[in-house]
Amino acid sequence: MISWIFVPRVLGALLWCIGATLLLPLGFSVAYSDGASGAFLLSMAVAATLGAALMVWTRGKAVPPVIGHREGILIVALGWMIAAALGALPFMFAKTFSSVTDAFFESMSGFTTTGASVLTDIESVPESLLLWRALTQWLGGMGIIVLSLAILPFLGVGGMQLYKAEVPSPVPDKLRPRIKDTAMALWKVYILFTVAETALLMAGGLNLFEALCHTFGTLATGGFSTKNASVGHYQSAYVDGVITVFMLMAGINFSLHYSALKGRPQSFWRDPECRFFLGLFALFTVVTTASLYGSVYASISQAFRYAAFQVISMLTTTGFTTADYERWPALAQAVLFLCMFLGGSAGSTAGGIKCLRILLLIQHGYREMLRLIHPHSVFHVKLGGRMVPTDVLHSVWGFFVLYLGLFVLFSLLMAAMSSDLLSAFSSVAATLGNIGPGFGAIGPATNYAALPEAAKWLLSLSMLLGRLEIYTVLVLLIPEFWRP
Amino acid sequence: MISWIFVPRVLGALLWCIGATLLLPLGFSVAYSDGASGAFLLSMAVAATLGAALMVWTRGKAVPPVIGHREGILIVALGWMIAAALGALPFMFAKTFSSVTDAFFESMSGFTTTGASVLTDIESVPESLLLWRALTQWLGGMGIIVLSLAILPFLGVGGMQLYKAEVPSPVPDKLRPRIKDTAMALWKVYILFTVAETALLMAGGLNLFEALCHTFGTLATGGFSTKNASVGHYQSAYVDGVITVFMLMAGINFSLHYSALKGRPQSFWRDPECRFFLGLFALFTVVTTASLYGSVYASISQAFRYAAFQVISMLTTTGFTTADYERWPALAQAVLFLCMFLGGSAGSTAGGIKCLRILLLIQHGYREMLRLIHPHSVFHVKLGGRMVPTDVLHSVWGFFVLYLGLFVLFSLLMAAMSSDLLSAFSSVAATLGNIGPGFGAIGPATNYAALPEAAKWLLSLSMLLGRLEIYTVLVLLIPEFWRP
Ligand SMILES: [K+]
Ligand SMILES: [K+]
Repeated sequence: MISWIFVPRVLGALLWCIGATLLLPLGFSVAYSDGASGAFLLSMAVAATLGAALMVWTRGKAVPPVIGHREGILIVALGWMIAAALGALPFMFAKTFSSVTDAFFESMSGFTTTGASVLTDIESVPESLLLWRALTQWLGGMGIIVLSLAILPFLGVGGMQLYKAEVPSPVPDKLRPRIKDTAMALWKVYILFTVAETALLMAGGLNLFEALCHTFGTLATGGFSTKNASVGHYQSAYVDGVITVFMLMAGINFSLHYSALKGRPQSFWRDPECRFFLGLFALFTVVTTASLYGSVYASISQAFRYAAFQVISMLTTTGFTTADYERWPALAQAVLFLCMFLGGSAGSTAGGIKCLRILLLIQHGYREMLRLIHPHSVFHVKLGGRMVPTDVLHSVWGFFVLYLGLFVLFSLLMAAMSSDLLSAFSSVAATLGNIGPGFGAIGPATNYAALPEAAKWLLSLSMLLGRLEIYTVLVLLIPEFWRP
Repeated sequence: MISWIFVPRVLGALLWCIGATLLLPLGFSVAYSDGASGAFLLSMAVAATLGAALMVWTRGKAVPPVIGHREGILIVALGWMIAAALGALPFMFAKTFSSVTDAFFESMSGFTTTGASVLTDIESVPESLLLWRALTQWLGGMGIIVLSLAILPFLGVGGMQLYKAEVPSPVPDKLRPRIKDTAMALWKVYILFTVAETALLMAGGLNLFEALCHTFGTLATGGFSTKNASVGHYQSAYVDGVITVFMLMAGINFSLHYSALKGRPQSFWRDPECRFFLGLFALFTVVTTASLYGSVYASISQAFRYAAFQVISMLTTTGFTTADYERWPALAQAVLFLCMFLGGSAGSTAGGIKCLRILLLIQHGYREMLRLIHPHSVFHVKLGGRMVPTDVLHSVWGFFVLYLGLFVLFSLLMAAMSSDLLSAFSSVAATLGNIGPGFGAIGPATNYAALPEAAKWLLSLSMLLGRLEIYTVLVLLIPEFWRP
């Protein structure tokens, strides 16, 4: 029943699109004369050829009128894998890494907006390749916005059904026109933010290359920097401030930004998830500031600046750093560790479990307490005054248990390849949540380069699973999926 | 609506019962002439006086014919707190500890079968007080069996409703006669096991005092030992073997033991939770043995012996140790860390989230994947071929989220009082799961003595919450509970 015409055709188009975006780093390569132009041209040739092959293969064949769930899932899962493979090509042709594993890891880390890096000296890499690295995140972020607001609601993944109401056509069989409209509207916001942040960063003294790279990393909540010391390199309160604000914005549901730009700024406050997200940010920043003030920073404004940056960076799963938080007090570290699991809003580019689900889980827990007192009464889980359907709750629960289950399974596998417990746990948390840096061997002052090859492949899978809301990948392993 | 006659009357009876059990350590104190007799006599006097006061206060007043949920919850929560307070008296009168906090912590750790200790030199404490310490665990274990198999199923806490079917009367209003019958039947099994293990340990060279203490600690999955090096002190494969087997038995639903003793040994294998528990034990033991063989122990039989002991000790949340597992490879440590969360079977004396719930969570996650492929079909979560009602699933989910929520909240609070992240996380995991030893500052080679006072009170609360399945304590904080 799976349409083997439609799926390859879409994937072919995807190859062409990504290939076309290679023009941007190619332009920088020429401008900087950094010697990487050949690598980009070769990669574009590969993308064009493979894309053309898929197009020719499916040409003239009829696409079935109804595109089902399984085609949607296949396109998403295969699409991300193909993008990661294609993204690795420039690194391989330019010999940025000594192994295919490293090139693929870095590219997967980009397209999944994780920002986990195996580059040991970022500043020695040609500018155009660093721009490509940042661009993979920006493209991945674009993909995620469409995935979470236009595709997952119809697939019924992990509670995203709640966002169905925001798009007029609830018929799952008529996915295609809806996706296009939604995508275009949201991408306009994304591009507007990109222009704004780039301009603001350039006003702070960054050149176009640095400003673009950090903007790509911010809005995709990706976290790839062009500096070994990440954003901390600039030692600038202004740069920290701009990036803090844009990380916060990138962690909010993009359909709310769209509403706000259409003249309804009250949307932010009316949305229960957004209120919860902002509340968490405020609470955690206060706690972390209190923990840092006096112990690490002598002035409260310094404590606040570094606390706010690190908290929003972890909460939105961006992973930019301006401080070595592993030297912070245990309380500040525990807050950041917790943020790694929570994540930003659904419908944003952030990873993690996400605020919407956390909010539903908490309300469900409270409801069960009320049921214990009044066993014969009926209580509903509500969100913004509206009752949440039981099947949405079930999806959320299912997502939550799979997330934790994978965290446990992958942690055990990583432990078999690690020397300490914390590194094993945190490397899985940081990749499954698409954060990037973690604690221990993969802390802010170190990275993933020293891990064994098998660990890098395992963590690449972890990034993919986390980014695609787990279900979308895991479901491919069930025999039921492939049965006609 | 809460009956202020029935609740105090039951608590008065409880005080008398616990007071009466002080006769056993009193007897040992006299036999060993260890100077602690006065402490026990004084404690008995306090228990008798307070119990009498409650009895006199409620004498002659009519008890309402229907005893509701809230009375049941109050008796359970207050009962455990009163037991812990009373249990601290002998330690205080005998000046075992320098502070009330330590005495209360040790007693709460006993009655919740946690086994977290603040004793720095166990072997210097008079025998009778060590026996009392072990006895608090055994009594706590008795309480837990009745709580989980006779009370919680009727209260509908955390999925325990599933066990309603095993007791003939499903009318929640007729709790009392049912509880008595169930309790008596299960206690017979508990006492039979106690006699058997004591005899087997004495056959291995332990004297009556040591055999009794370790038996109490095993069957209650408590883990208090009479030796600083825990069970590792004996350096005996026989003792390790006996305790391993009895820990395994103590981690299985006691109603299955009852069935087996009534001539239906196939009950074990027919019960899906028991199969799952045994499967986890086998899997984890194999993985841990593989991790230890060659790296820590040169012979495979040594690796197996220490792996099996530590795995079942953590999985059943007993907390006895025969090795300093913090020096083990990361994989072996990760397995033990995972065990801390899983726990034994529901209806056993083990703590943790428990196998029944884990099994339901996994099945729910799988069902949600099937629903993604076939969105219009209906799938049920089944256990042993029978459909699990939705409200049971909801209870389990509620329990799970509260468990994790408390883990997070308490970890943050502990982090504010700790120097490192792992100690903060593991001290909460070890108390909420009623395990005892953990990792870091509270590892097998150290204990809770060095923690600040506030941390000890917080962890006492954590033990109580964990032991009473969270809901039973947390519900007291909701205003709804106290409304007529
Ligand atoms: K990231
Ligand atoms: K224990």
